[in-house]
Amino acid sequence: MARKKQTEIRWEFGKLVDPSPEQLQHEAASRHLYGHDIIDAVKEGRMAPAPPVGPSTGPTTYRVIGQGMADIHAVELVTGRAKYSTDRYPSGTLYAAVLRSPYPHARVRSIDVSEALKLEGVMGVITFNDVPKPATRAVLAEEPSFAGEGVAAVAAINPGVADDALRLIKVEYEQLPFVLDAREALRPGAPLVRSGLRTNANRDPQFSYRRGDVNAGFSQADLVIEWKTQTQWEQHVAMEPHVAVAQWDRDDKLTIYTSSQYVHSMRDGIANVLGMPQSKVRVISEFMGGGWGDKTGWLPYHIVAAVLAKKTGRPVRYELTRKDVFLEAGHNYPKYHELRLGFKRDGTLVAGWSRSWIPSGAWGARANTDDVESALRLYKCENWDVEGYAAATNTFVAGPLRSVGEPAGQYAIETAMNIAAEKLNMDPVEIRLKNIEERVDQVTNLPYSSCGIRECIVQGAAAFDWKNKWKGWQRQRDLTKPVRGVGMMAFAAAKGGKSAPMTAQCIIDRDGSARVICGAGNIGSGQRTTFLMIASETLGIPLERMTITMPDTEYTTDTGVIAGSRGTKSVGSAVQAAVLDAKQKLLQNAAGRMRVPVDDLDVVDGVIIQKSNPTNRLTIAEAVASGTVVVDQQTFAVSTAIVGNASLPPPSGYSQKTFGAGFYEVEVDPGTGEVRVLSVVQAHDSGKIINPLAAENQVHGGILHGMNKALTEELIFDPATGVPVNTNLDDYKLHMINKTPPNIKVIFVETNDVLGPFGAKGLGEPANMPGLAAIANAIHDAIGIPMNQSPFTPYRIVKAIRSA
Amino acid sequence: MARKKQTEIRWEFGKLVDPSPEQLQHEAASRHLYGHDIIDAVKEGRMAPAPPVGPSTGPTTYRVIGQGMADIHAVELVTGRAKYSTDRYPSGTLYAAVLRSPYPHARVRSIDVSEALKLEGVMGVITFNDVPKPATRAVLAEEPSFAGEGVAAVAAINPGVADDALRLIKVEYEQLPFVLDAREALRPGAPLVRSGLRTNANRDPQFSYRRGDVNAGFSQADLVIEWKTQTQWEQHVAMEPHVAVAQWDRDDKLTIYTSSQYVHSMRDGIANVLGMPQSKVRVISEFMGGGWGDKTGWLPYHIVAAVLAKKTGRPVRYELTRKDVFLEAGHNYPKYHELRLGFKRDGTLVAGWSRSWIPSGAWGARANTDDVESALRLYKCENWDVEGYAAATNTFVAGPLRSVGEPAGQYAIETAMNIAAEKLNMDPVEIRLKNIEERVDQVTNLPYSSCGIRECIVQGAAAFDWKNKWKGWQRQRDLTKPVRGVGMMAFAAAKGGKSAPMTAQCIIDRDGSARVICGAGNIGSGQRTTFLMIASETLGIPLERMTITMPDTEYTTDTGVIAGSRGTKSVGSAVQAAVLDAKQKLLQNAAGRMRVPVDDLDVVDGVIIQKSNPTNRLTIAEAVASGTVVVDQQTFAVSTAIVGNASLPPPSGYSQKTFGAGFYEVEVDPGTGEVRVLSVVQAHDSGKIINPLAAENQVHGGILHGMNKALTEELIFDPATGVPVNTNLDDYKLHMINKTPPNIKVIFVETNDVLGPFGAKGLGEPANMPGLAAIANAIHDAIGIPMNQSPFTPYRIVKAIRSA
Repeated sequence: MARKKQTEIRWEFGKLVDPSPEQLQHEAASRHLYGHDIIDAVKEGRMAPAPPVGPSTGPTTYRVIGQGMADIHAVELVTGRAKYSTDRYPSGTLYAAVLRSPYPHARVRSIDVSEALKLEGVMGVITFNDVPKPATRAVLAEEPSFAGEGVAAVAAINPGVADDALRLIKVEYEQLPFVLDAREALRPGAPLVRSGLRTNANRDPQFSYRRGDVNAGFSQADLVIEWKTQTQWEQHVAMEPHVAVAQWDRDDKLTIYTSSQYVHSMRDGIANVLGMPQSKVRVISEFMGGGWGDKTGWLPYHIVAAVLAKKTGRPVRYELTRKDVFLEAGHNYPKYHELRLGFKRDGTLVAGWSRSWIPSGAWGARANTDDVESALRLYKCENWDVEGYAAATNTFVAGPLRSVGEPAGQYAIETAMNIAAEKLNMDPVEIRLKNIEERVDQVTNLPYSSCGIRECIVQGAAAFDWKNKWKGWQRQRDLTKPVRGVGMMAFAAAKGGKSAPMTAQCIIDRDGSARVICGAGNIGSGQRTTFLMIASETLGIPLERMTITMPDTEYTTDTGVIAGSRGTKSVGSAVQAAVLDAKQKLLQNAAGRMRVPVDDLDVVDGVIIQKSNPTNRLTIAEAVASGTVVVDQQTFAVSTAIVGNASLPPPSGYSQKTFGAGFYEVEVDPGTGEVRVLSVVQAHDSGKIINPLAAENQVHGGILHGMNKALTEELIFDPATGVPVNTNLDDYKLHMINKTPPNIKVIFVETNDVLGPFGAKGLGEPANMPGLAAIANAIHDAIGIPMNQSPFTPYRIVKAIRSA
Repeated sequence: MARKKQTEIRWEFGKLVDPSPEQLQHEAASRHLYGHDIIDAVKEGRMAPAPPVGPSTGPTTYRVIGQGMADIHAVELVTGRAKYSTDRYPSGTLYAAVLRSPYPHARVRSIDVSEALKLEGVMGVITFNDVPKPATRAVLAEEPSFAGEGVAAVAAINPGVADDALRLIKVEYEQLPFVLDAREALRPGAPLVRSGLRTNANRDPQFSYRRGDVNAGFSQADLVIEWKTQTQWEQHVAMEPHVAVAQWDRDDKLTIYTSSQYVHSMRDGIANVLGMPQSKVRVISEFMGGGWGDKTGWLPYHIVAAVLAKKTGRPVRYELTRKDVFLEAGHNYPKYHELRLGFKRDGTLVAGWSRSWIPSGAWGARANTDDVESALRLYKCENWDVEGYAAATNTFVAGPLRSVGEPAGQYAIETAMNIAAEKLNMDPVEIRLKNIEERVDQVTNLPYSSCGIRECIVQGAAAFDWKNKWKGWQRQRDLTKPVRGVGMMAFAAAKGGKSAPMTAQCIIDRDGSARVICGAGNIGSGQRTTFLMIASETLGIPLERMTITMPDTEYTTDTGVIAGSRGTKSVGSAVQAAVLDAKQKLLQNAAGRMRVPVDDLDVVDGVIIQKSNPTNRLTIAEAVASGTVVVDQQTFAVSTAIVGNASLPPPSGYSQKTFGAGFYEVEVDPGTGEVRVLSVVQAHDSGKIINPLAAENQVHGGILHGMNKALTEELIFDPATGVPVNTNLDDYKLHMINKTPPNIKVIFVETNDVLGPFGAKGLGEPANMPGLAAIANAIHDAIGIPMNQSPFTPYRIVKAIRSA
């Protein structure tokens, strides 16, 4: 396995130490390939000095960390025993369905639910009049502002009756003008997205950034690339649809089973909308079938289920149909990007100008348009002028999808870099190595907490055999038959860092087993196993004797969302701190009992030992109960468990980024436009890899996800009616597992991050970042034409070839 | 309501202060009744000085404490929404049944399960060969040592198939000698109860106590009463039968839904028997339909369900049939008691001699035979000689039932006191008031943490109108028609105290609502409401904004059993301490933010105020998040919740007892032997009453329970076969609610216990203590004959009258 070999390379704070024979061989290859000695330069400090970082967070050899471990839930998952929220059917459950607006913007003139109520088996009907009206999003709307927004809902004894009842609700709509495009929405005279919401009232950019003097920069440039890209609407398409099973335990206490990356945010949101204390709303999400950023906060379906459950006095289950998901849930927004980059003749980037626009939908959170920022950090360049615009539109509600806007930004930047390389007749790898900045984040002027970008590019190129596979720009391409090409990209991702809130608890039970109490979402990427590995390594109790709780707001504290690839670094740090707190209390008890200094004690394989005299031991059971009191001649244990608790502040003083590079080989059929991905190498600096098995799986999944983004996924609006036309899994195309490239190689450049638990950083989102830009560049290499609109469907490929 | 009036009386450390008009009137009545001025004596310190206690634990006026509140779960309970463990049917559930020995002692010569396995729908069969063999109790027995001990078990697709399968298991037994009676079991030559368990090998008393010189005491006595009593086998007959729904989430993680007073003990026991870490066993018991002491630890049914679930790979549900419950579960043991008491002519008790014997069953824990100890404390008497014996027998397994052995001990002592009163022609109330000791526990020489025994007797007698209802001893009784009588008893109960472990956590969420994390059993007596009242009063957050978790070992720490009436005082103290810990952290955060000393802050109605300047306020949300850090120009909250934690040591320096007196009026039909209870007054010193509504309900239930004990409940063995004959609810008689006495009056003498939260003590068991002894005494008063064997069935009443 590629991983196994790579993890033998030891890194310390971005510097490679004690190279192994394989590594020396690899270094030699690097020298040969690029004509300069990168490794020596790093070692001698001439190039990219290591950031000024603190002490190592742990030993270099570990008992658990770094072992490839199967997910602790593997058996439950593969045997079907795992309980998803879609598996919840409390006794007496009713089934909800929602009537949705067929128009992108309309006002309900009249609504008549009387016939629906008469249908046998219908237990309750509600309309927009029966639900709270939060300012941030309609639960049910009197003035629907996108096609698919709900106006009424029913609860019935089975889903068929519920569906029938929807057809009996009579609604008279007044259709209103609508706008779908961000730039159109910002123009004077554009229609109102919703009464009182005039998108073009504020035309300031959502994001702007300037550095140096961009005009002076361009005036120095020998080459200026002007480039425009457009990406597409996407949905997350989690295997488990959104669901809320709401039951009122009593009139003032609500329990909701839902599929959630962030039960505490949902709890707080639902409590807020319903005007309830947070303590009276319980949100549970044990297993979930994917989230990808779309299951982080409350959505209308939660409130619909809760209100119907209250009204009917029975549990109400609202499992969104796939079409409901496509309409009601979040969507990755399409981005239109205008970019200008200036280069010196030797490939040095000297100026950058960027404008981008996204539609955020009728109720969108201010969607992230600062996704060009990776490039601001990745490449040394003194002159930048960046503005990003987001506009409310009568479209899907925009929200984060794995990696959020970064792949779209990287697509713009990294394809432009490729075009520049072509114009300058440079190796795409070389132009990137020339420009990367490894030490200091140029936006914040903070040192990186770790940075392995150079090694990612170098090792990735070597593993891909870039030297031989890339045939150079100045070659003749025969487009009468399938043609191969290679493309690469590099990235610095604002994902995978450490951020507040970070809380956890740890309970050591009297038999020396332990529990981690943690409310982090169980998103399915094996992070609970990672947390437990961190806990076991820290505590010294074997992993087999430890458990970690499921996400349930009744018992846990908010430790932030499982998104932004923050789980391992943030929640992992919280878990580690809680475990350390418990361990300290345990050792203090033991120190009193053993009459040795607490600093001389440790836990090894579940037993407390004196470090200076390892035969002096105490069981954990004895230490847990060591606070004893004699009352009436009987000895009582003061404690039956030790409780550790942690709440960490967000870190400061460092810029936290993950880094990586992707190398893709494709074969394009110029006749049909079909693109096949043949081989992939992705090299990631995600710090220390806690669980290599899970990490490699994560990257494999990310590669497929990136391929979908590049080649297939696209939600399409009919511009005439404003209605999306392919809200189903027949017409919305996804690659299946049979499209997995025959060759995938994953490399981990294990920097030792100064802030992460055991030096770890995040990986989930970095894993899907390379696909879009690298495949675009591979197609560019194959057919000689850069692609400016994703996904690169057969139609667009053929069209590009014919236009050229 | 009686309660309302009584709670207006303010007590401070056992002394009555600032008497109200009603109270003065009541005092006058007391003076009149007993010819001496009790109240003045107490006030002037001549009589029963207040114990040397510490400072008050709270203010004398409360916001929540002392309000009669409906159970927080009332709506769930009465609407049927509450989920009991018997309501759990995970998908794929199999149903277990157990084949039980028909003999009280036998050895299985052969067992053939092949026919059972062939039955369609049978998914697994196990025998004693397939289960662990813990030393303390057989899961399934090769040598069953009581009639009803399991030998094999099946899991099938429905209960009917499981039951059919049992009939197909062929077992050949070798019958072995057995012994049912404790005294017989202790005789030389008695049969072995089980191979290797020779009961008579150790004939030492289980409990012995001596004080003073009992022979010298008797030689001073003007009157010596010799008296023998016998009580009966009883079962708890909880409405919800014992149940275990076992599912293996994965091969090494077991979840069991069960009906439990003590989920942590069950977890630890099951983990121990199965050889698993405690952290890998999850025991959940949300709502339960009664426990009465019988659902505190693991029993065979838990292990049977777990082993069958492992074997079949499916969830297995074993809900005991009522007959199973009668056979497998715990039983209150019958006690044979020989007693000798010596009195001076004026009623002073000068000597006591006591011997008692109980059968503890084949696997019984050392059942409590020290139940005469109440009397050792209750009455000043310098000379005592007490021994109690417990013997293993081939009977039901003995275990605690509400109040354990105390009612049987009180029955012996208090009926003997009544006989003494008759012989001395004294008022039964007077003889008790003459002998009670109120200050110091004479066994431990520790001061009482509070003691209201005198006021219980005085106020109870006044409320009952004892003066008029009791007609004196020297009267003619006409036994040709129904005849009325009154009886009373007093008690000092070793129940209702504070004991370790005491642990809890408290989480204050950022919206200013709060959660109590507590694993205490939800036994159904409203204690969770009590805990929440204590938490709300302590924290200053309205009760409506607080919740308390359900018993679930996955998330909670062991806070001891909900039994021994320890919940309010022990768990309540832990909850209070955890809440105070959280409150202190909250106020520390607020002090920093408000720049005032933390001591000058408090939480009032959910808002933090400066005590010296109440207009200076801070919301809890602000204080929770007040640890903020600015990173990259963004402000982050360090915390989204505050976590408080407590683990209290057991108290020392005090004797903790609850006190009370019961007054019963009965009508006996001498022709049929039927006894009807007409009116009851119970006066309780259970310290400060947190929730008067729940407390009064608890006493009403206790009265019914005591009536059953006195009049109906009795499990009977056939002495020839050793088989119990009435293991069903037709033949095992219980009073239904229609036997509730028409007049019940409950009085709370609210002492302010120095150790209890807000001065509270326990009440659950004290509530059922008076019935047995007081009804015996009332029958004695009615028919002129003391009853020496319970229950006082029509047969025994008629027999006693005919014998007299």
